[in-house]
Amino acid sequence: MTEKAQIGVTGLAVMGRNLARNFARHGHTVALHNRSYGRTKELVEEYGHEGSFIPSESAEDFVASLERPRRVVIMVKAGKATDAVIDEFAPLLEKGDMLIDAGNAHFADTRRREAALKEMGLHFVGTGVSGGEEGALHGPSIMPGGSKESYESLGPLLEDISAKVDGEPCCVHVGPDGAGHFVKMVHNGIEYADMQLIAEAYDLLRSVGGHSPAEIAEIFKGWNEGRLGSYLIEITAEVLKQTDAETGKPFVDIVVDQAEQKGTGRWTVQAALDLGVPVSGIAESVFARALSGDPKVRAAAANLPGPSATAGAGGDNLQADVEQALFASKIVAYAQGFQQIQAASAEYGWDIDPGAMAKIWRDGCIIRAKFLDFIKQAFDKTPDLPSLLVDDYFLDAVSGAQEAWRRVVATAAQQGIPAPGFASALAYYDGLRAKRLPAALIQGQRDFFGAHTYRRVDKDGSFHTMWGADRNEVTA
Amino acid sequence: MTEKAQIGVTGLAVMGRNLARNFARHGHTVALHNRSYGRTKELVEEYGHEGSFIPSESAEDFVASLERPRRVVIMVKAGKATDAVIDEFAPLLEKGDMLIDAGNAHFADTRRREAALKEMGLHFVGTGVSGGEEGALHGPSIMPGGSKESYESLGPLLEDISAKVDGEPCCVHVGPDGAGHFVKMVHNGIEYADMQLIAEAYDLLRSVGGHSPAEIAEIFKGWNEGRLGSYLIEITAEVLKQTDAETGKPFVDIVVDQAEQKGTGRWTVQAALDLGVPVSGIAESVFARALSGDPKVRAAAANLPGPSATAGAGGDNLQADVEQALFASKIVAYAQGFQQIQAASAEYGWDIDPGAMAKIWRDGCIIRAKFLDFIKQAFDKTPDLPSLLVDDYFLDAVSGAQEAWRRVVATAAQQGIPAPGFASALAYYDGLRAKRLPAALIQGQRDFFGAHTYRRVDKDGSFHTMWGADRNEVTA
Repeated sequence: MTEKAQIGVTGLAVMGRNLARNFARHGHTVALHNRSYGRTKELVEEYGHEGSFIPSESAEDFVASLERPRRVVIMVKAGKATDAVIDEFAPLLEKGDMLIDAGNAHFADTRRREAALKEMGLHFVGTGVSGGEEGALHGPSIMPGGSKESYESLGPLLEDISAKVDGEPCCVHVGPDGAGHFVKMVHNGIEYADMQLIAEAYDLLRSVGGHSPAEIAEIFKGWNEGRLGSYLIEITAEVLKQTDAETGKPFVDIVVDQAEQKGTGRWTVQAALDLGVPVSGIAESVFARALSGDPKVRAAAANLPGPSATAGAGGDNLQADVEQALFASKIVAYAQGFQQIQAASAEYGWDIDPGAMAKIWRDGCIIRAKFLDFIKQAFDKTPDLPSLLVDDYFLDAVSGAQEAWRRVVATAAQQGIPAPGFASALAYYDGLRAKRLPAALIQGQRDFFGAHTYRRVDKDGSFHTMWGADRNEVTA
Repeated sequence: MTEKAQIGVTGLAVMGRNLARNFARHGHTVALHNRSYGRTKELVEEYGHEGSFIPSESAEDFVASLERPRRVVIMVKAGKATDAVIDEFAPLLEKGDMLIDAGNAHFADTRRREAALKEMGLHFVGTGVSGGEEGALHGPSIMPGGSKESYESLGPLLEDISAKVDGEPCCVHVGPDGAGHFVKMVHNGIEYADMQLIAEAYDLLRSVGGHSPAEIAEIFKGWNEGRLGSYLIEITAEVLKQTDAETGKPFVDIVVDQAEQKGTGRWTVQAALDLGVPVSGIAESVFARALSGDPKVRAAAANLPGPSATAGAGGDNLQADVEQALFASKIVAYAQGFQQIQAASAEYGWDIDPGAMAKIWRDGCIIRAKFLDFIKQAFDKTPDLPSLLVDDYFLDAVSGAQEAWRRVVATAAQQGIPAPGFASALAYYDGLRAKRLPAALIQGQRDFFGAHTYRRVDKDGSFHTMWGADRNEVTA
């Protein structure tokens, strides 16, 4: 009998190819398939020596080359391409087989697909895979959803190829149906916020601090040794120290300042709005990219008046202050993102362990950081923590940071440096801790113009004031 | 031959009843229908003397009582109830008849319904109606979508019952299919932002200014005489001067400070994200309501450290500064909302005249204000204005306001008063006018971890730096 493959990959562009190689390097026999056979052949020719591959030209041969239950990883463009591949493979599979979508699908699509395939007796596993091309090859962070049963059979293979921290895999069963893709989406949303905050820190150090990109690279390198230590801080230093070979200028100065985006940040905010979770940090970062990418409006607005930043205006402690503002704002962004995960878990019955998410993000993915250890510990200690901000470690951090944070937000406003991430995070923080919010006035306005009623602080019930008449209060 | 009705209303809860009375008061014969006949009878008994009504118990009789082409206004709860009523009436109607949905439907639903009914030869008109119960009776602002042909027949009736400014109706054909509901949605989103900004102004005047609600009512009354003059400012003064009869306390202090929302603000932000338009002001106001309405997290966060606001900390000019900050932030919110309308118009081929929207919002609706005259003038002068902020009037206003605006944002940050609306608007303003944004660094990070490529300021093309290798640049 011919040897069968433990896992198959269809869609062999760079992400799929690297996942396939990663499985093979871990001793698994990997079935290969691609719409055009050229890529399949190429992979075997170039990397066949790395392990055991079974290339197939047809979907039928590919399916036949897999051991039962079959595990088929789909790595194609999210959307219609994914549906097309599912439609092609589902009829070829048998009860108990698994289709694993490792692309960046919207979790609602994953829920729909999972339900449809369950009716056919198949497992559909939407899984987040973070870490880009390099991660896919050397060990990504993996966030599989789908049934528990599917994880029993598939999980060990995914854990094999995932990144490891102290020997522990950066892969865990997130929860049923769309849970994995949801968590991956929020991961990306947090990544947007993290990057925006770093960008604001850089901007302040440069415009108000008067430092060159190379000097700021050194500052980031120093921060990377401390509590901010993370992949994003590390690569920020690398980008900032880069000199453009052609012009001799700092690399960052020759790049067009229009940030692009692929959609998961937007999805995160849209989903948070449906769940009623305020993710202002992620929203501001998505909007900041949108603003930067609108040259027509920016050109028209170039003459809007405002101060030019004065180097030195931030005072002698600017560098330390910005580090504090960055750390505190980062805590807010993560607090918001984790609250969104908890809210979705409750809404969809996913029973997600937030601490486990922090654990599998400690390596392999873009937001990997020391920081996530503390998040893990916070949720391990208090699984239903209402907000990361009230965990001892983070409370202590923001307590120490908040004065500097206020100085930085005030300086940015006075100096005309856009810092939507820092400012929004601080406003969120002050909103949360407020004893009374002016939301009471908003309720009064709503009752005035729309008879929407209000509640009273001193007794139960709903009330309405007859604003257009005698202005007496009635029970609504 | 029996007299026929020019227009019919089905769904006679308070909004539908008032619209029906408004039509009748303007001399139109109005056909009436409601799922339960009780409400229909009640309307005729109570208000029959106001005009000419033809009540019907069955849908068939109701339809038969209408002149051709029939105009049937649906005023039921958005969502399934609307679909149910459409399914009930569409088969009873004939080619050229009109179904008019006057509820707050999502514009995507309206597009779907319009397309489906067009296939049956019927006109479906999704129309925004703003102004609440009072507006519906005395003259709302009306934003009808649907075909031009339907407006020829329906428009004059809607214009009759709409609010008027200098004799001109607050009603215009917005554009095809979902354009009317889209514009109404953005109207509500702007309303959210407007209310949040007013709430922040109140909070600062109270906590930092040390003023009582009654004093602040007087301040708002004064502002209402100036450039901020608007319905929302006017009713804010009324709400703030109200004393609770039971406790003798200011009304605003006995209202639970948890703002509620019904969904159009959220929809506005979600739609803006799809269009790539930064509506940070609306988003922050939706999030501020969500934050206020989460007592569990707020209770947990009550011990987060921060300053207690010191009365007088804002300086002698706080009141004037806050007025400037409020006006400038309001301009930003409207600039963002109008940009969203322009983007949607381009995306869906609606050919919306933004100036006409400002014109029909000048009365009847919740955001009615003097201010809208200037917006109308701005778009009349430059129909494709890239941003309201660069129109002479608004540019002049923000130029004069920006120093005070910066002081207010800085003061709020320093004093621990949450001002997400003011801060976000200022950050947007500074982002727009920035010569260089740190988005260039974000593009560098994206190229580093995901090979997403970047563009250069000095030549065309897409480029990638080989970060993991020799760090040379290649053409992508």
